[in-house]
Amino acid sequence: MSRDGDVTLTLGEAEALARSVLERQGLAPDHAAAVARTMAAGERDGCASHGLYRLLVAANSIAKGVVVPDAVPVLSEPAVALVRVDGGGGFAQLPFEQGKPLLVEKARRFGIAALALNNVVHFAALWPEVEALAGEGLAALAFTPSHAWVAPEGGTKPVFGTNPIAFGWPRPGKPPFVFDFATSAVARGEIELHRRAGKPIPPDWGYDDAGNPSTDPVAVLNGAMRTFGGHKGSALAAMVELIAGPLIGDMTSAESIAADQGRMGSPIGGELVIAIDPSGFLGAGLEDHLRRAEAMFEAIEGQGARLPSARRYAARVRSETEGVRIPAQLHRDISALLKA
Amino acid sequence: MSRDGDVTLTLGEAEALARSVLERQGLAPDHAAAVARTMAAGERDGCASHGLYRLLVAANSIAKGVVVPDAVPVLSEPAVALVRVDGGGGFAQLPFEQGKPLLVEKARRFGIAALALNNVVHFAALWPEVEALAGEGLAALAFTPSHAWVAPEGGTKPVFGTNPIAFGWPRPGKPPFVFDFATSAVARGEIELHRRAGKPIPPDWGYDDAGNPSTDPVAVLNGAMRTFGGHKGSALAAMVELIAGPLIGDMTSAESIAADQGRMGSPIGGELVIAIDPSGFLGAGLEDHLRRAEAMFEAIEGQGARLPSARRYAARVRSETEGVRIPAQLHRDISALLKA
Repeated sequence: MSRDGDVTLTLGEAEALARSVLERQGLAPDHAAAVARTMAAGERDGCASHGLYRLLVAANSIAKGVVVPDAVPVLSEPAVALVRVDGGGGFAQLPFEQGKPLLVEKARRFGIAALALNNVVHFAALWPEVEALAGEGLAALAFTPSHAWVAPEGGTKPVFGTNPIAFGWPRPGKPPFVFDFATSAVARGEIELHRRAGKPIPPDWGYDDAGNPSTDPVAVLNGAMRTFGGHKGSALAAMVELIAGPLIGDMTSAESIAADQGRMGSPIGGELVIAIDPSGFLGAGLEDHLRRAEAMFEAIEGQGARLPSARRYAARVRSETEGVRIPAQLHRDISALLKA
Repeated sequence: MSRDGDVTLTLGEAEALARSVLERQGLAPDHAAAVARTMAAGERDGCASHGLYRLLVAANSIAKGVVVPDAVPVLSEPAVALVRVDGGGGFAQLPFEQGKPLLVEKARRFGIAALALNNVVHFAALWPEVEALAGEGLAALAFTPSHAWVAPEGGTKPVFGTNPIAFGWPRPGKPPFVFDFATSAVARGEIELHRRAGKPIPPDWGYDDAGNPSTDPVAVLNGAMRTFGGHKGSALAAMVELIAGPLIGDMTSAESIAADQGRMGSPIGGELVIAIDPSGFLGAGLEDHLRRAEAMFEAIEGQGARLPSARRYAARVRSETEGVRIPAQLHRDISALLKA
């Protein structure tokens, strides 16, 4: 169905299209299904940059050999309350799906547990992971480095990745409270959009490779982005490097971009997910205390401020009844991959 | 010894003075010793606002009955990998000291563990906690709400506290990497300093109680401060409320300030500390991977950027040889408490 130059797909159609395209590129069926679920969820939630558009990115990663298309994730238990899934160089989605049940079980049994994904290719946001865990009634945190594109505060040379932090909190009878943001000043894609549009960027987004603040998106893409929030954002970016890099035996953003060898592939490395079972501390008081959390959400929304996940959930409700609309050109580019 | 109008004390003298003053106010000796250690450490590290100056704040909290001076902390194990210390309304330092050994033991045994301090009075920074855990070879995170003084991004009414986040990372042969920052745009004390000096504050620090941005420190102290880093800092502040409030069965910042009933006492509530043993994920690879973390620190410092804890450690080295210098007036105010 086409309307206003867009192609409208039901959520089922969007996911099936993504799965077909990924399988056609040579991705093993279990990986293709897991990746397609994540891309369709992004499209559904109005995150176009993490939606079906990413099929083009994934196809490039597969074609260039950045990702192992038929990697078999290997699950292990390095310590009593720790889970590890070695992704073997494949996409992160299937390893997360395979590690999640044991992470949930351990969080419930011990009160807190952590999951490391190792040796995985990242192209997606982290909110699907923390939302899935909050859907199991757990509080969850997730972290991952990326490629070294971001300078520490006080410097001008890249050390950190865009290093997102995501958090999920279970809300009885409602979708979870979820946030997921880059610790860089803006998403790298935002600078890319300015480059394509030939527009300057604000002077506080980054530096050229001589270390001067620059409004030229190309110069900043080749130089260094800044972190959000000055030295505080920079400290958080360093933490993400440490706990989702060396702590779990995986690459820092500097090591990931070095390993990429200029292929412009998606970042390869690790991800750390921490899950805490509120019942662990609260026992029979669980319901009362979750209700107290709701009072905080009401104090935020009651003054007209928005919860971080509100826009995504509103888009989700629309998409579930109206389907998703894909720009006609993007739909053609994606469909072309079916014949490639 | 007096010089330039300051009084110089050795670290031992500073700690002994703090302990005497606290005991004189009626604080039980074990609490007085723990609190004095923290205040002397703040003074030693050049954090004057968390140093001996806090004796005046603590004396006020004790005099007004905000703190239970002889509270006996009660330790429990709500779940296999969780520790709880109920502080019984006393200061947070002794409960942390008493909960720390079991937290460390559990983190080593299970790979990850968490400690909740409940029903404690907070006046100090969080870095002493995460630094102590990093000193045991663990990565550590700490969070605590405070009083509702900070508006969520997009709103102008207070919901959050200044809600600090602290992180510690062990460095072989060096002091740990540690950061500790408020998720508010600035420390509340910074606005107080402007008020005392009769100076305006920048317009992006907060709102008056009509919800307008204000440069009047008094108006913002009575209105609402802003978070750092826009909606990202606001999301983190909400997370701190949740995981160091309802998750551990303790108060949110809004509940804490309501319970204060206008006494202007220190915040009462909870604190969440998460500890992860790098050996859990790394096993025999520990040394290699900690070395890779050092490469990241070198990439930061090698370009002239500073690590978050660098200034404190430099002050510490100076204080250990030269002692600490207290303004003469502050020393008189503190000494007066010995006779009160």
